[in-house]
Amino acid sequence: MTGTAAAPFTADDYRARMERAVRTAADAGLAGLLVAPGPDLVWLTGYAPIAVTERLTLLVLTPDHDPVLVVPALEAPDAVKAAGATALTLRDWTDGKDPYAATAALLDPHGRYGVSDTTWALHLLALQRALPDGGWASLTDALPMLRAVKDAAELELLAAAGAAADRAFEDIRTMRFAGRRETDVGADLADLLRGHGHSQVDFTIVGSGPNGADPHHEVGDRVIEHGDMVVLDFGGLKDGYGSDTTRTVHVGEPADEERRVHDIVREAQQAGFAAVRPGAACQDVDRAARAVITDAGYGEYFIHRTGHGIGVTTHEPPYMIEGEEQPLVPGMCFSVEPGIYLPGRFGVRIEDIVTVTDDGGRRLNNTTRELVIVD
Amino acid sequence: MTGTAAAPFTADDYRARMERAVRTAADAGLAGLLVAPGPDLVWLTGYAPIAVTERLTLLVLTPDHDPVLVVPALEAPDAVKAAGATALTLRDWTDGKDPYAATAALLDPHGRYGVSDTTWALHLLALQRALPDGGWASLTDALPMLRAVKDAAELELLAAAGAAADRAFEDIRTMRFAGRRETDVGADLADLLRGHGHSQVDFTIVGSGPNGADPHHEVGDRVIEHGDMVVLDFGGLKDGYGSDTTRTVHVGEPADEERRVHDIVREAQQAGFAAVRPGAACQDVDRAARAVITDAGYGEYFIHRTGHGIGVTTHEPPYMIEGEEQPLVPGMCFSVEPGIYLPGRFGVRIEDIVTVTDDGGRRLNNTTRELVIVD
Repeated sequence: MTGTAAAPFTADDYRARMERAVRTAADAGLAGLLVAPGPDLVWLTGYAPIAVTERLTLLVLTPDHDPVLVVPALEAPDAVKAAGATALTLRDWTDGKDPYAATAALLDPHGRYGVSDTTWALHLLALQRALPDGGWASLTDALPMLRAVKDAAELELLAAAGAAADRAFEDIRTMRFAGRRETDVGADLADLLRGHGHSQVDFTIVGSGPNGADPHHEVGDRVIEHGDMVVLDFGGLKDGYGSDTTRTVHVGEPADEERRVHDIVREAQQAGFAAVRPGAACQDVDRAARAVITDAGYGEYFIHRTGHGIGVTTHEPPYMIEGEEQPLVPGMCFSVEPGIYLPGRFGVRIEDIVTVTDDGGRRLNNTTRELVIVD
Repeated sequence: MTGTAAAPFTADDYRARMERAVRTAADAGLAGLLVAPGPDLVWLTGYAPIAVTERLTLLVLTPDHDPVLVVPALEAPDAVKAAGATALTLRDWTDGKDPYAATAALLDPHGRYGVSDTTWALHLLALQRALPDGGWASLTDALPMLRAVKDAAELELLAAAGAAADRAFEDIRTMRFAGRRETDVGADLADLLRGHGHSQVDFTIVGSGPNGADPHHEVGDRVIEHGDMVVLDFGGLKDGYGSDTTRTVHVGEPADEERRVHDIVREAQQAGFAAVRPGAACQDVDRAARAVITDAGYGEYFIHRTGHGIGVTTHEPPYMIEGEEQPLVPGMCFSVEPGIYLPGRFGVRIEDIVTVTDDGGRRLNNTTRELVIVD
């Protein structure tokens, strides 16, 4: 709930990002970019409105004029405080006026524009009506890699977020699990993330016993028991950049099968990591991790893609999934998170954030991937 | 961060809402409704995913088949727990499949569909590509009043949220203001709202002295001083329904002009309230409140519309604004919140939630609108 992102970037940084975005858009045959509140706007300008509402806020990036931020007059005093504000021309509009017509006047009636993914349909449909001969593409379709390659300052922030999440895991593994509810452990994890510098907690998944077999189960009232596998998947934003890590722990000594499944997932995670290098395709990371699990006979129980990008959000392109031929580029950051989910029994997932280096990959999470025994 | 709304509605209630929505859509010439996560989905099904992501979740409402919820396979276990789930057919899809083609197969290729306002452009553009001859309209344009008329159970929840916000004001007015930061008073207000039963705090505006002249100023580091006017505007969700109220207090005795401006705003708020009755137009409420302020010579300092609807969100249609000819209907709920903002000096706003009755209006906020003196 702040008007500016916490990341330590200057107006010059944002100006450079916007200039690069316009060039990239032109190279992709777009007349420009239209960016509503959300991660793209944060990344391009440092501006996040207090609330995303029915009142149009829209960044207009085109090659023929400086960046324009269309903003409700009521919110202009917040917008001018954004770190990138001096790189923007603000065009405010008051209740009762038509901000779509004002925006359309800035655009080429026959141009094709990239639109940020999270732009509300309310706004896009009004823009389409104001510019009936325009063309439109989502940023994920048109410029999926716009934010994918991180610069040195961004990598430092992502590494710091990962290290903070690692410290949260080192703390939680010493705490008691047996006899406590998933909700309680989840609350501890959230407190630990905040204690280690996160300003925002996006998720704290605690999937104990059979709940671990549902990859998106968050936390429930289930009381964790001795003998449970427990999937811990947690992350959020620290200084404007994301963390996301998963470790699966066991309450007391595991049974043979539990250990075997954990070993397979660990080997799969290592194989996915080992496939990370410049020029490899995103799908190669998925294939490498999946092959280990399939070869071990658990292929049908690995029911999601292997990873997703991370940056100013905890979920963004590139996606490590079959069919994604995008080559890896140094500076990309994404999760490698294979899992095995045995319905009604237990689940195992191991996840690190990995960045592509000049000759391979580097993990931004560094806690042990061995099966940790907790009390 | 819960999979279900807290409101005490049953699957039958949600089924009835969906049936009514389909009929209303057909009457408006629409082939159906497409509803992504957000307030419309909560209202129609009781379902709110843990996170709104790039994975498509979409409710498809058409006259020729039962309601279908397209949902990522990973999130289906959450969706089945929603209060309205048994009124839905779930169609889950797994990573790598095309959920847009699957959705398009449920639709008339030449139909015109209403799309929920907050649907991401990412999804709408993909649907438009999958159904190139389809037509599209936002719900605000096509069916702005879909959720506007509240039933008895909803009115009870809105009244309870309003009463809780009133108790928060009664508490905060006894606390110290002078010498404390706006952020501290804002945090107190948030705690009080939660203490009185709110599960979510959407905003706690504390605009002291010159900050009060910026209607959307939230809270800042400014230390409140003796002699300040302080605008307090706060609200959120209690049991799934919204509160939103504003009172302007003064630290110590006010100057003559401060009292005069407060009297004018109070009179304007009363005039807006008095204009509320079935059959009056929304703009009549705005005109009635605005006339008082304009006649007093402060018209140029009332820089926003007079009000907005409230329900499962704290901001929704109908809007009390010049040009809005929508007639008021019993059961509608909205704010009446005129203000005067003197740049660099101070601001005054008074806001109650009002519901339309059979013969007039009823306030859901009932704390005094006299100028309250605080310490």
